[in-house]
Amino acid sequence: MPKMSQTEQPYRQRLEVRMIDIAERLIERKGLAAVQARRLTQEAHCSVGTLYNVFGGLDAVIIAVNIRTLMKLGIELEAVVRSTQEASPDQRLLALARAYHKFAHDHSSRWLALFEHRMAEGAEVPDDYRNQQRKLFTIVEAVIAPFVADDAARASAAQALFSAVHGIVKLSLEGRLAPYDPAETERQIRFIVSNAAQGLQSGG
Amino acid sequence: MPKMSQTEQPYRQRLEVRMIDIAERLIERKGLAAVQARRLTQEAHCSVGTLYNVFGGLDAVIIAVNIRTLMKLGIELEAVVRSTQEASPDQRLLALARAYHKFAHDHSSRWLALFEHRMAEGAEVPDDYRNQQRKLFTIVEAVIAPFVADDAARASAAQALFSAVHGIVKLSLEGRLAPYDPAETERQIRFIVSNAAQGLQSGG
Repeated sequence: MPKMSQTEQPYRQRLEVRMIDIAERLIERKGLAAVQARRLTQEAHCSVGTLYNVFGGLDAVIIAVNIRTLMKLGIELEAVVRSTQEASPDQRLLALARAYHKFAHDHSSRWLALFEHRMAEGAEVPDDYRNQQRKLFTIVEAVIAPFVADDAARASAAQALFSAVHGIVKLSLEGRLAPYDPAETERQIRFIVSNAAQGLQSGG
Repeated sequence: MPKMSQTEQPYRQRLEVRMIDIAERLIERKGLAAVQARRLTQEAHCSVGTLYNVFGGLDAVIIAVNIRTLMKLGIELEAVVRSTQEASPDQRLLALARAYHKFAHDHSSRWLALFEHRMAEGAEVPDDYRNQQRKLFTIVEAVIAPFVADDAARASAAQALFSAVHGIVKLSLEGRLAPYDPAETERQIRFIVSNAAQGLQSGG
């Protein structure tokens, strides 16, 4: 990337932020499929060439929005962890799972974009995104740390818990198995998470 | 629908089957997005008007393929249930979950189409599809029946188990959290399913 002059740099940064803002609004209002180069650049008053110059392509803009979403979710989950410090690990896991359900429900378009986005053929998910994702798992791992000493086993259990809750929330919100009923979703979350927590506590 | 003559009926039936066969091949080879009216009718040597006459739209063709996929999955799951009659309920649940993982892996395009398809705005998923889906849940419910007497609780537990395993399999196969590693996927399935089964057995 060519070195830029003092005046060029802030302009470029502002353009970056503006494009991410626009993509974020498009995702929120119309979903991931609405984020297209032509639309984005029209709203940002720049050329498609500029988009590619600044971001190297659409993937990086979407990843930037998805990182914001992960950060937003992280703030919610951190708040749950802080407010449940006195609770038992299984109650804390349940509170985290419920917060995930609420986030998915309240920000469904942003949340869906996390799981719908696919990088262009052959491209890897950037480290920034992986690191942000890692931070969320660190939250869950810290809660179960008293029961799982082994790092790999702890990471595996956290991924399993997340994926299981995610599956319940996703199929529920989409009404794939039955019409969406938040109380029933909570019941299913409780069944899976409480028993998993029980297993962890008894070393299972 | 107007009554058809003796000679017209078989032709129409053959056309129906041919269109479903073509849609099935398209889904297997190129995924759900490849099933488009123009492409389908070109390969079936008929007009788009005929497609709408026979099926009322693309949704019904896709639903017909998805019903075939559910039936195929049902055959696998029934075989697992038959071959594990002597095993404990938690081993049977694990065997069902593993068979689901294998099916999703081996028939990923068909399997994805089950969860990617959305009916046209305002249209309901047809009863034939719901009934076929119901049959699959009946298989899981039968396995846990000894522990859950209440019908609603049993249906809820079966949906929770299915959704949890589905979430693990989906995020694993897509490499969303980490590169796909079948042994790790099995480990996560075991963690969630064994503990859930344990909870059911102890009346939790």
